[in-house]
Amino acid sequence: MPRTTDARTRTLETAADLFQRQGYHGTPLSQILEESGAPRGSLYFHFPGGKEQIAAEAVDVASEEMEALIIWAAEKSTDPVEFLGRITGSVARWLEASDYTKGCPIATVTLELVPSIDEVGSAVRAAFGRWSHLIRQGLIDLGFPEERAQGVALLAVTAIEGGLVLSRADRSTVALRQVREQLMAVVAPVSG
Amino acid sequence: MPRTTDARTRTLETAADLFQRQGYHGTPLSQILEESGAPRGSLYFHFPGGKEQIAAEAVDVASEEMEALIIWAAEKSTDPVEFLGRITGSVARWLEASDYTKGCPIATVTLELVPSIDEVGSAVRAAFGRWSHLIRQGLIDLGFPEERAQGVALLAVTAIEGGLVLSRADRSTVALRQVREQLMAVVAPVSG
Repeated sequence: MPRTTDARTRTLETAADLFQRQGYHGTPLSQILEESGAPRGSLYFHFPGGKEQIAAEAVDVASEEMEALIIWAAEKSTDPVEFLGRITGSVARWLEASDYTKGCPIATVTLELVPSIDEVGSAVRAAFGRWSHLIRQGLIDLGFPEERAQGVALLAVTAIEGGLVLSRADRSTVALRQVREQLMAVVAPVSG
Repeated sequence: MPRTTDARTRTLETAADLFQRQGYHGTPLSQILEESGAPRGSLYFHFPGGKEQIAAEAVDVASEEMEALIIWAAEKSTDPVEFLGRITGSVARWLEASDYTKGCPIATVTLELVPSIDEVGSAVRAAFGRWSHLIRQGLIDLGFPEERAQGVALLAVTAIEGGLVLSRADRSTVALRQVREQLMAVVAPVSG
């Protein structure tokens, strides 16, 4: 018999996946239960706040994958151009590998539920904040000027977000690959 | 008695507004009917394809507002910096004026319905294509180098899209204002 913590984690991972594919309102609780295989009782036990609580916690789970990617890209890269190129390239491959069903792990619930549901608002705000902060830090560690790092990190997060929406609409990674080139140009040294 | 074309337009405008605020799945047909005041019979008459057809046509209606903004900004601006500054500034004011309930007119339905519903996919693809094209043309008309205009237009559309998501999450236009500054810097002449 699986431990309850497993049921909890499985529920959140399944929810994060389904919300990405089809949105919060498009995902009934019954589908989360069925696909996670978690017993109904564990759902009520772990998530007394119901579907809204699941959404808020699923944002944290979904965010971790992006955070891990940014940290990995910073460690593997030798300069800011390579760093942003790696992040954007990986995101494009994720979308392609999901056959264009999974974009940003948290954008859909943001657009559906914020500002109406506070708990989800806090979770997405914190997640976007962590991504921007990690990219800013990676840029600085790789020698990018500190005074420009915050603005460029925000441009990277927003352009990747938007690139995921356009690439999903297009069923093609062309938009994300153009975002990748543009971001690399923004952080490239000015003289040739 | 209103003309049926009015009922049709009203239905689409109401649907576009509701989908922006709460998503496609979060908007029942009954709410579209109630808020538009359109008679139920006209709904079945004008939209035999049901809610999916309404979603696809509402994307076109919602897109027009953004197209008008881009065209206006190009006419009012004297250089590329002013042009992108104006577009991004207006979008930030729209979001603020809606008390952070209305972001991109078409992003939510894209993330909820694409790629599963083809008709909506075609509509959002065409809309994003028109926005990029109009920004590219505006940049060129204002003297921006043609060979860079396509890439920068795409960066602008994606960063504004993402900026709308982050600003909605934050209930603040800070992210969009940072995107604005970054985009203006990207198109600024290199030498001071």
